Amino acid sequence: MKVSVPATIANFGPGFDVFGLCLEKPRDVIEVELSGEIRVEVKAYSVPEEPEKNIASVSALSLLKILGIESGFKMKIKKGIRPGSGLGSSGASALGGALAMAKLLDIDDRELIIKAALEGERIASGEAHGDNIIPALFGGFTILKSLSPLEVFKMSPKLKLVVVLPDVEISTRRARQVLPKYVPLSDAVRNIALASSLVLALKENDVKGVGQLLDDHLAIPYRKPLIPWFDKVRKAALEGGAYGVSLSGSGPAMFAIGENLKDIGKAMVEAFEEEGD
Amino acid sequence: MKVSVPATIANFGPGFDVFGLCLEKPRDVIEVELSGEIRVEVKAYSVPEEPEKNIASVSALSLLKILGIESGFKMKIKKGIRPGSGLGSSGASALGGALAMAKLLDIDDRELIIKAALEGERIASGEAHGDNIIPALFGGFTILKSLSPLEVFKMSPKLKLVVVLPDVEISTRRARQVLPKYVPLSDAVRNIALASSLVLALKENDVKGVGQLLDDHLAIPYRKPLIPWFDKVRKAALEGGAYGVSLSGSGPAMFAIGENLKDIGKAMVEAFEEEGD
Repeated sequence: MKVSVPATIANFGPGFDVFGLCLEKPRDVIEVELSGEIRVEVKAYSVPEEPEKNIASVSALSLLKILGIESGFKMKIKKGIRPGSGLGSSGASALGGALAMAKLLDIDDRELIIKAALEGERIASGEAHGDNIIPALFGGFTILKSLSPLEVFKMSPKLKLVVVLPDVEISTRRARQVLPKYVPLSDAVRNIALASSLVLALKENDVKGVGQLLDDHLAIPYRKPLIPWFDKVRKAALEGGAYGVSLSGSGPAMFAIGENLKDIGKAMVEAFEEEGD
Repeated sequence: MKVSVPATIANFGPGFDVFGLCLEKPRDVIEVELSGEIRVEVKAYSVPEEPEKNIASVSALSLLKILGIESGFKMKIKKGIRPGSGLGSSGASALGGALAMAKLLDIDDRELIIKAALEGERIASGEAHGDNIIPALFGGFTILKSLSPLEVFKMSPKLKLVVVLPDVEISTRRARQVLPKYVPLSDAVRNIALASSLVLALKENDVKGVGQLLDDHLAIPYRKPLIPWFDKVRKAALEGGAYGVSLSGSGPAMFAIGENLKDIGKAMVEAFEEEGD
């Protein structure tokens, strides 16, 4: 059984821990078959091959355990999404492992698959939020209202964007730790206004509107010390014609919305490169 | 010049200080003509007739001042919206005064009208938020992104609801004072999920969905001491078949969404009456 799981943009502007967008690429490809032993083989980006440390195999093991099935498996992973990129690399592996195993066993209970995938994600980031798993599973643009019970709203907007990934890594765990437990009520109100306007703009296919509604007051301001180049790259994108720019997940990847995506991407890459000197 | 301004539901579930819904009735009717003196006459619900204490005349005076026009006026107000009801009574008077004067002077600059109306609202509640003025002016369902510069998104959903108004008053000022300056980030996230899902449900004319997305974690929990009957009336409405229930503005009015609105309203009225015994 072979599945292919795409990269995703979690948070997406003002939708911290709520909004997610499924991308077309890059992807993780995971192949699994039942076996007497447990063996994991990884190609492309390097991640652990020990079954208890590999996210995809932990998810697959978790699904077997939930179902009370005792079996080993051989798993082949083509890790196409760079770990620590902010593009949902661990979420894709976690979902891929659970999904491949579920398909092999002819199971399509989404809640079960998500539950198993969350176990896999937990070993990667300490906490499991599902904010990458959900858009990867549902596709399109997702609003995660609740994980348990599972309540997800989905839209399928026509949205083109450019994603730029610099050669640095951000620890998801660290990016969680810098967030405050309490935030100003006024900032919560600002994000509610932005997030709900953004849903309306998406629904009306107003690409410019979506771009102009990407501000965030709840997570990115506190993460600035981890992403010192954020303002510079954002400025370069806006000067390059972008309608709006934001961080993908907890970064370092950033994305921009606009018309001339090639030029915007180039301007962002140049800003990253200057910063790297 | 005569204008009629409707009652409004501010906050609307998870959209504290952001969402507003324009109702068909009740309404304030305000008539104004230029005059050598300044005189205000009020019918129906009783509010001050002193020009510097009457919300509508303060708004009208404020518009004249902004425009640099020195003139008096005669104003007749039919105050159809009960003050302290949570139905945007002061917002309607504030908008009505500014709007009637603007029409008399052949001005239709929305930002100017809102600016003058906010001055009127300020004398009522200490602070001016515009969360009733905006839906009353724009009609339909409004998402207030920013007052200055004015950025409002409007939807025109087909939405029927029942509003129940008990014979108590809530001070808007007090209802503001009980709110915390800081709120848990997790509550902000919950409201973002609810508010953005609600916009999607409205856009898709999913009345049941809208009803089920009215929870709020940012304002109502802190206002509970001012509205001790809230849970009881809410429960009665849900048991009466409502999809969802919430507070209108800072109360005491409550509204419910459902099919059999007459029965739901009756159940809510009965719960209010039991509480009043």
